[in-house]
Amino acid sequence: MISSLKERRTIRKYLNKDIDEQLLNELLETAFRAPTTQNMQVYSVVITREQENKEKLAPAHFNQPTVTSAPVVLTFCADFNRFIKWCEQNHAEPGYDNFQSFVTAAIDALLVAQQFCTVAEISGLGCCYLGTTTYNAPQIAEILHLPKFVIPITTLTVGYPADIPAQIERLPIGAILHHEAYQDYTPEAIHRLYFEKENLAENKKYIEENHKENLAQVFTDVRSPRKDNELFSKTFLDFIVKQGFRLPD
Amino acid sequence: MISSLKERRTIRKYLNKDIDEQLLNELLETAFRAPTTQNMQVYSVVITREQENKEKLAPAHFNQPTVTSAPVVLTFCADFNRFIKWCEQNHAEPGYDNFQSFVTAAIDALLVAQQFCTVAEISGLGCCYLGTTTYNAPQIAEILHLPKFVIPITTLTVGYPADIPAQIERLPIGAILHHEAYQDYTPEAIHRLYFEKENLAENKKYIEENHKENLAQVFTDVRSPRKDNELFSKTFLDFIVKQGFRLPD
Repeated sequence: MISSLKERRTIRKYLNKDIDEQLLNELLETAFRAPTTQNMQVYSVVITREQENKEKLAPAHFNQPTVTSAPVVLTFCADFNRFIKWCEQNHAEPGYDNFQSFVTAAIDALLVAQQFCTVAEISGLGCCYLGTTTYNAPQIAEILHLPKFVIPITTLTVGYPADIPAQIERLPIGAILHHEAYQDYTPEAIHRLYFEKENLAENKKYIEENHKENLAQVFTDVRSPRKDNELFSKTFLDFIVKQGFRLPD
Repeated sequence: MISSLKERRTIRKYLNKDIDEQLLNELLETAFRAPTTQNMQVYSVVITREQENKEKLAPAHFNQPTVTSAPVVLTFCADFNRFIKWCEQNHAEPGYDNFQSFVTAAIDALLVAQQFCTVAEISGLGCCYLGTTTYNAPQIAEILHLPKFVIPITTLTVGYPADIPAQIERLPIGAILHHEAYQDYTPEAIHRLYFEKENLAENKKYIEENHKENLAQVFTDVRSPRKDNELFSKTFLDFIVKQGFRLPD
């Protein structure tokens, strides 16, 4: 079991085969057993199966082909709308229109998304996360009719794998772990920890294709340049506020 | 396998039994196979095993007894420090000092935390999330010596279960799922979806103990009142900025 999770990989290409509704519900119900802050379950999941609706979502995900080719697209949302409505209906005064409550709901949504990904993979399905969800949250919210206090946090495309790609590399675990306190990285440590990653044939190909000097420049200049990150920062933070989560003074 | 994940529960009390270092590393290495944005792995994990250090962390987690009684405490951090150092060392210009990059790193850290929780549970360990991590991030960062661009996002206490508590309730899956678009909740739907939760003996006990009229008021008045949420909002957002993730103008 553990070994299968160690062998897991992201699946972007799917067979033309639907996911049975009963199976999907079973997987979702299992995922909803993921830990949640104070057992509030301040998240919602929007299921997109209709081709027409996948095509509406695709541009918000920069037309990654996985969106329109997956049988199921799941948008995981931070959701305080339902909980606030429940409070108001019970003459309880909700104080959740703030940044920390947004963070709480986002954490809930992400833990559930990852639990869904795991149970889907264990069941022979493949998944792909779309990081574009927070970049284009306002567009996605409009397409999915998300009300105040609901914010899309991540998206999973799900389907039966068309093929199993090679597993990609990870940093050595020593790069990630710190014992008792954070030990900051010396230049030598950075060099050693990224050495294998920099020298993989696949990564060398990206450097060449993008006419860069090294892999780091592929990230900073091509994959997530400053101007994109700054634009998406403004879009997302403005949207958090628009949806009702006020920033502190 | 799926059925064991459906039966999972949070474990707060542990046997007085250490976790073998080789096992812990194996679980962490498996967790680091969780999906990560652009395979950047912008997270770090600080392992606390020393009793003295657990006692230092405990007040930041409001002295929840699970912190000092667990053999292992793991603090999962959003970490762009390592990646930025790698970029700078390669004459690549990092543009990650912004809110969206913080969000990316926080997502990475949370997916890894949940993957760790799952592999630990599958291996017979029990875990408890500490939502206090984002409330008292500055204190935790000081204790763990977290540098610029590193922010604690969540904490897991881990150990062998001392007992297996009853599984707590979840909302019916219909409360969480939306097909094709978000269907907002009518007052009748809210009443129906929360009915079972409101009427559980355990939840009725909380109402009585706290001298409240109903369960919603236990949340709004006792568990997360407005003034706490607003204080923690300010503390956390100020800390995000202090650690180098600028807010948009």
